[in-house]
Amino acid sequence: MVLCGLIGAIGLWDAFAWFRGDETAKFVAIAQFGAVGVGLLIGGILLRVTRGCDYYLGRREALLRVGVTWLVGAAVAALPYFLWALLSPRAPETHPFHTFADCYFEAMSGLTTTGASVLGTAPSDIESLPAGLLLWRATTHWIGGLGIVVLFVAVLPTLGVGGKKMFQFETTGPTKAGVRPRIRETARILWLIYFGMTLLEILLLKFAGMGWFDAVCHTFATLATGGFSTKNASVAAYDSVGIEVIIIIFMVLAGVNFGLYYQLIRGRVSAVFKDTEFRVYLSIIAVASVILILFLMHEPIIDATGMQTQASFGQAVRHGVFNAISIQTTTGFATADFDQWPFFPKAVLITLMFIGASAGSTGGGIKVIRIWIMIKVLLAEVERMFRPNVVRPLRVGHTVIDHDLKLATLAYIMGILVLFLIGSMLIMALEVNNEALTRIGKPITFGTAATASIATLNNIGPGLELVGPVQNYGFFTSASKIVMSILMALGRIEVYAIFALFVPRFWRRE
Amino acid sequence: MVLCGLIGAIGLWDAFAWFRGDETAKFVAIAQFGAVGVGLLIGGILLRVTRGCDYYLGRREALLRVGVTWLVGAAVAALPYFLWALLSPRAPETHPFHTFADCYFEAMSGLTTTGASVLGTAPSDIESLPAGLLLWRATTHWIGGLGIVVLFVAVLPTLGVGGKKMFQFETTGPTKAGVRPRIRETARILWLIYFGMTLLEILLLKFAGMGWFDAVCHTFATLATGGFSTKNASVAAYDSVGIEVIIIIFMVLAGVNFGLYYQLIRGRVSAVFKDTEFRVYLSIIAVASVILILFLMHEPIIDATGMQTQASFGQAVRHGVFNAISIQTTTGFATADFDQWPFFPKAVLITLMFIGASAGSTGGGIKVIRIWIMIKVLLAEVERMFRPNVVRPLRVGHTVIDHDLKLATLAYIMGILVLFLIGSMLIMALEVNNEALTRIGKPITFGTAATASIATLNNIGPGLELVGPVQNYGFFTSASKIVMSILMALGRIEVYAIFALFVPRFWRRE
Repeated sequence: MVLCGLIGAIGLWDAFAWFRGDETAKFVAIAQFGAVGVGLLIGGILLRVTRGCDYYLGRREALLRVGVTWLVGAAVAALPYFLWALLSPRAPETHPFHTFADCYFEAMSGLTTTGASVLGTAPSDIESLPAGLLLWRATTHWIGGLGIVVLFVAVLPTLGVGGKKMFQFETTGPTKAGVRPRIRETARILWLIYFGMTLLEILLLKFAGMGWFDAVCHTFATLATGGFSTKNASVAAYDSVGIEVIIIIFMVLAGVNFGLYYQLIRGRVSAVFKDTEFRVYLSIIAVASVILILFLMHEPIIDATGMQTQASFGQAVRHGVFNAISIQTTTGFATADFDQWPFFPKAVLITLMFIGASAGSTGGGIKVIRIWIMIKVLLAEVERMFRPNVVRPLRVGHTVIDHDLKLATLAYIMGILVLFLIGSMLIMALEVNNEALTRIGKPITFGTAATASIATLNNIGPGLELVGPVQNYGFFTSASKIVMSILMALGRIEVYAIFALFVPRFWRRE
Repeated sequence: MVLCGLIGAIGLWDAFAWFRGDETAKFVAIAQFGAVGVGLLIGGILLRVTRGCDYYLGRREALLRVGVTWLVGAAVAALPYFLWALLSPRAPETHPFHTFADCYFEAMSGLTTTGASVLGTAPSDIESLPAGLLLWRATTHWIGGLGIVVLFVAVLPTLGVGGKKMFQFETTGPTKAGVRPRIRETARILWLIYFGMTLLEILLLKFAGMGWFDAVCHTFATLATGGFSTKNASVAAYDSVGIEVIIIIFMVLAGVNFGLYYQLIRGRVSAVFKDTEFRVYLSIIAVASVILILFLMHEPIIDATGMQTQASFGQAVRHGVFNAISIQTTTGFATADFDQWPFFPKAVLITLMFIGASAGSTGGGIKVIRIWIMIKVLLAEVERMFRPNVVRPLRVGHTVIDHDLKLATLAYIMGILVLFLIGSMLIMALEVNNEALTRIGKPITFGTAATASIATLNNIGPGLELVGPVQNYGFFTSASKIVMSILMALGRIEVYAIFALFVPRFWRRE
């Protein structure tokens, strides 16, 4: 419903542009309204089907709803691209939306705040698309980011699913009567925070020299840690230190647990700075940035526009910090073609890809807190080898991590690694005979398949080699695009919700 | 002490050959006797130093002793190579033992039953070495294999370290008085089993057409799942189906938990076939073999001698089964240059590299039982997502896996993955400026570093690319060889024993 409203709003905006004489906006407007129609239809059918059911929302039903919402939502969000490609008189070579798989990939990438795009080099490049579609792309990010924060900070903890212990909220245990009002209240506050940050960044970017349209689109992509840009060269296109600094700050803010902002608003400033995950998150950013800067100082830097500069200290700082933060927060904006960097800076970026941002943020990845718990568990296990009778409670901050959470954390990380491997293998298998690649003489490499797998699973966007920061995902076969769309969804709702749908026991009556 | 005895015995054998007129044996004999001398000296010093101490062997002391024994043992085992290289009049270009790091690597690779070798292409190839050194190489495998079985099946379980629950033995809890006799008794039976299997394989290989010397060396390498061959082309050199079948059977037998043979001798036949790990182990071998056969049927096969044959069904079966089993049991004999296979068969082999053989066998790797427990835990965690109140005990066979073991298993696998990554990165870092590689225009690749890391950590031997089955480890820098020697030791004694030495708390008094 929310999706339809947003599509409709953009449709109106486009219709307005059309009446002002912009011919390209015409087909976008028609496509948007068409999408609203289909979306309402699907929504109506779903409401009709579920009307007879009991209202009680059990755990299985909630998980099912989340999973289905994401899969169906992406299909609705793909409609504007699809209908536009169908209706617009533009030649098919000049845009990438040939099949529904392309559109679904782009929409899923938007909603999951991944930022991997099928939009390619000219003439089917980003900048040649009508403004309405670009705005829609950015909007899918924004709504996806908001959705995930509300889901993980407000909804799931009260249902007792997964996140509760992770976010260390003082949820006093859900009572039947109390759940709905509290969710609504928390969601309202989160929505206000998100909205306020959006306004602030738009104004700052405008102030730093962006146009209104670009400022809005980049703000949507930053706060959602998405990464869709309106420029082919991403943020490098502006070549402005001011813009980069603003985006750096808001990327870092977007990668923080939004529960902390909630605490901040309620006046608990010290709680924020005592938060273990927040501290570790900032430390990782600092360490990674320093390592990148040290390496980049000795290397010529090729930025995302293809320009090569011999790195001064300032250049190294600018590129090192921006790209480290862009990858760790899983945003995926690029100011440099880091695929051309030497092995070590690349290894640092790959490590960051696996870590990701904080839990309860709009960022993806395994999450800092899980990595932290894993390290602590591993150290404790080493100690247990030679001192098995010493029982030491494992603490994160002041919270004692119980046995179940330890096991769940390790199992989650293991699950992500297994999915990453399965994804890599599937992509390899599906792309071995990709004709588009054989034609240009660049067969699929394991580096491409592996980084495409992790970049979609962890909602990052760019990978390395054929999916590097100045490349795109357009060349993949439709089958791979579907696989990657599923990886994005799995990574976004933290795997298990969708996973559970495929376990037979899920469907069995107790 | 045992090492010294063996070196001495081979020294005598060589001295005998020398007196019969074999000039090359002279320096080997001298080297062996020199090694015995140094070995006895070190042993004597250690005994002298520890004489004053209390006899009580605590857990820390036991771990320390195991770790140190392995590190020092490899140094003693490296002496015959080192002294031979020092004394022999052969030109340095014709052998690879230039530095102590080379010798240490070869000795560690032998003792840990890895099978990675610094021996390279002619003139510094395997076949040009004197027989005495080749026999010593094989003997390090044999003694290493026996040592690890005794350590994991007889010693550690009674100390209550790690393996106890894994091997499902009816140890009735170690009483102070009972431990030593029981260890001695179990060790004696294991030794008899190992010795019997050795005799049997030697006779069978001789019967199948090998010379006595080759039969002994290949038997030592098979039963220890080592992989050192006396031929440059490994087992492919014989091109004999009979020999391959015999080696296949004994590789499979060597990859089984030796505790099962112990059960078998005590008449519990059904216990063996009910053993979960045994069943899963055989299933993995079967599935992997079938997949490889299906792929290889359509590909020309390049065997380890460089011969290319268009694969018939028989060829595909022969190469598929042999190499699947060789890799999964972490033996590392080769009959085909699987580095030249297409991506999928290679991916299967890499997967097998991570799984490895059974616990309590002479094979390395993560071990089938741990992988099995991991899969069960992951599935249980998925179920817990939507049905958190159902507590279902996790069983392997009839044994309930308790919470501690679940966590320990996941932590172990995670630890191996972390070590694998650290190893890969270190090797990358140390080899970036390797002049030998730049000279031949083959810079280090991540594929090489990663497979070298896993092939040494999991005690396999060959990896892919520059360390593929027809390549060798001679080109690495000394620093990398030391890193890989440590990886081999870590993998062999299941990481934590050596790991613990580097944890400060280990050294602190309670």
